[in-house]
Amino acid sequence: MTSDKKFAFEITHKDPNSYARTGRYSTPHGTIDTPNFIFCGTKASVKGLSPQQLREAGSDIILSNTYHLMLSPGPDLIAEMGGLHKFMGWDGPMFTDSGGFQIFSLGHGGVADEIKGRPQGHARPKSILKITEEGAAFRSYLDGKHFFLSPESAVDIQRKLGADLIVQLDECTPYHVDKEYTARSMDMSMRWGDRSLAEWKRQDNGAQKMYGIVQGGVYADLRKESCEYTASRDFFATAIGGSLGSHKEQMYEVVAMCSLWIHPDRPVHLLGIGSFIDVFSNVRSGIDTFDCVSPTRIARHGWALVKGAPKERMNIRNAQYARDADPVDPTCPCTTCKNHSRSYIHHLFRVGEMLGMQLLSIHNVATMNRLMRDVRQAIKTNTLDGVQKEWVV
Amino acid sequence: MTSDKKFAFEITHKDPNSYARTGRYSTPHGTIDTPNFIFCGTKASVKGLSPQQLREAGSDIILSNTYHLMLSPGPDLIAEMGGLHKFMGWDGPMFTDSGGFQIFSLGHGGVADEIKGRPQGHARPKSILKITEEGAAFRSYLDGKHFFLSPESAVDIQRKLGADLIVQLDECTPYHVDKEYTARSMDMSMRWGDRSLAEWKRQDNGAQKMYGIVQGGVYADLRKESCEYTASRDFFATAIGGSLGSHKEQMYEVVAMCSLWIHPDRPVHLLGIGSFIDVFSNVRSGIDTFDCVSPTRIARHGWALVKGAPKERMNIRNAQYARDADPVDPTCPCTTCKNHSRSYIHHLFRVGEMLGMQLLSIHNVATMNRLMRDVRQAIKTNTLDGVQKEWVV
Repeated sequence: MTSDKKFAFEITHKDPNSYARTGRYSTPHGTIDTPNFIFCGTKASVKGLSPQQLREAGSDIILSNTYHLMLSPGPDLIAEMGGLHKFMGWDGPMFTDSGGFQIFSLGHGGVADEIKGRPQGHARPKSILKITEEGAAFRSYLDGKHFFLSPESAVDIQRKLGADLIVQLDECTPYHVDKEYTARSMDMSMRWGDRSLAEWKRQDNGAQKMYGIVQGGVYADLRKESCEYTASRDFFATAIGGSLGSHKEQMYEVVAMCSLWIHPDRPVHLLGIGSFIDVFSNVRSGIDTFDCVSPTRIARHGWALVKGAPKERMNIRNAQYARDADPVDPTCPCTTCKNHSRSYIHHLFRVGEMLGMQLLSIHNVATMNRLMRDVRQAIKTNTLDGVQKEWVV
Repeated sequence: MTSDKKFAFEITHKDPNSYARTGRYSTPHGTIDTPNFIFCGTKASVKGLSPQQLREAGSDIILSNTYHLMLSPGPDLIAEMGGLHKFMGWDGPMFTDSGGFQIFSLGHGGVADEIKGRPQGHARPKSILKITEEGAAFRSYLDGKHFFLSPESAVDIQRKLGADLIVQLDECTPYHVDKEYTARSMDMSMRWGDRSLAEWKRQDNGAQKMYGIVQGGVYADLRKESCEYTASRDFFATAIGGSLGSHKEQMYEVVAMCSLWIHPDRPVHLLGIGSFIDVFSNVRSGIDTFDCVSPTRIARHGWALVKGAPKERMNIRNAQYARDADPVDPTCPCTTCKNHSRSYIHHLFRVGEMLGMQLLSIHNVATMNRLMRDVRQAIKTNTLDGVQKEWVV
């Protein structure tokens, strides 16, 4: 089997009223239907869930973070253990980011704060030591040890990790910089894109494909330039990164403008975004895959994603659930909702039993997978508006 | 079906060389083979494992603690939710203790320290306010609220919880008291036993059977008296409680002396004991069931139970496992050992991923269940000595 036969992206249906589409995305570790959700296994573990539990909850694809894994346990150890799939026991499609996202985020502030444009209420220690054309020097948050990440080393590390889908190194432009900085940064990310591609080609063994990243902040002319750059290069797929503005409407606008210029036949990933409303809004701009830590992160704080609930969620710690015999979401077929009541999970959180976090993590993952199934079905049947009303009130 | 038909204990094989025996123990929620291990779901959750995962790991029976559940969420709430089986999603045999164990332990010091006779390196806040013939007044460790536990209320609470097997209230005699205190305490526990039985009979609906508890510390004459007391009363089964001495050999002696006088046809439970060597030693004194928090507690600290390992365990956090591609125990068929390497679990503990605790908890529970299967088989085939040498080095 040649490299190209292992990977494929086929658009199976196009929404006549928007850029929404369904597709089949093939990798050496299996084929997934799109749009789909990629669960974050930051440190080679989707927090609180085993690979078997992820599968049971209907998950198709996960990602892991190059930044965290390069610090611990290190790419060489993972390569020695047979690569990330074998190391963490996940045999399905897998994605790794380039590491840049976290490095620049830790330098500038919280990742989610920055790409979503939220003002930062607190200063964080700066871990970036120096960003040059060559790459980024930074300190490990674990032990202060110095590291250097270049476009080439990011590819090399991701090759050792061995995910199916890898990402060029870019500078994740923060929101709170001006257009000139955003433009300069984008230009450097393009040059880093060319270097990443060259290194990937030099090492290519047919097991991995690379995403180019669209930068340009909230500026249409820059996003256009960046889309045209990625489309003109030999990337297999495209990811939309960088600052998406200061509020949801601006995010949808930025993604919508990208849909005009992004390569139309390649898979498109939207980095770090994943609420119900975000999924519905952005699939209309042609997004094929999403990722976000929030389903498992909020679960650990007692939040359950609930179809059709106000703000898309409920907090199981609320006293009103103490004697509530219903499942978390009576419409949900996951093992948590099949076997456990709100009352029991409320109790687990109240007394600090970690099973509570596990059960809600299972539910939230299952709910995102159910959302994505509904979205795919809705696109195929041209019922996206109606299905959105069921999920988002 | 009458009450008596729902419950049964049949001895299926007796070891010719010791008091060891195999049996079939029937409850309204199923029949288990003995000797067996009862996993501690202290606060209505075996820490880190769902009921489904407990089943997958081969578990037959669990227990929950009256003391913790009476404080939170309270017996009335659990009754309202349909009882503990339904509340926590466990449909198999279940055991609750009487609450006395924790109350007196919190008053005197750590439970395990006391029953195993270890000196206490630190003082604990005393939560017992007053022990009288009537019962024990104590403060909640959660909010300081006052509670009162009597033999009658302990039965009433356990009836509301709804476990199959319940326990009379007793005073768990500590090690660091003299014989006179131990004797006086034992006498009170006997009177409490009669009151517990009377209350149980008054409320009996056929769904629960009661254990009498043998006290008497390390003193043969007291143990004999206590065994004869429980045997003379209408308890369905017998539990051995109280201080078992200051070291393992003394514990084995105390349990061995009980085997001479305990009711020979009733199930015998040994409270709070459960290392490999303890199981092998004590089944020879006729113990049918064990319980101990240690399999899941040590898992959360990185300890894996390993058949035939020095001290019965290994700590996965040791640097030597960082690049070890073997499963935790290559001879173990559990899902953790089937799917994950020492290297991966070492990594999870190193970076603080809770999946590490979950995977080792699964392994340790599965290992205890495998141990008990081996022990039953060994008793049936008169090969206890040989099988012990495989497990304990």
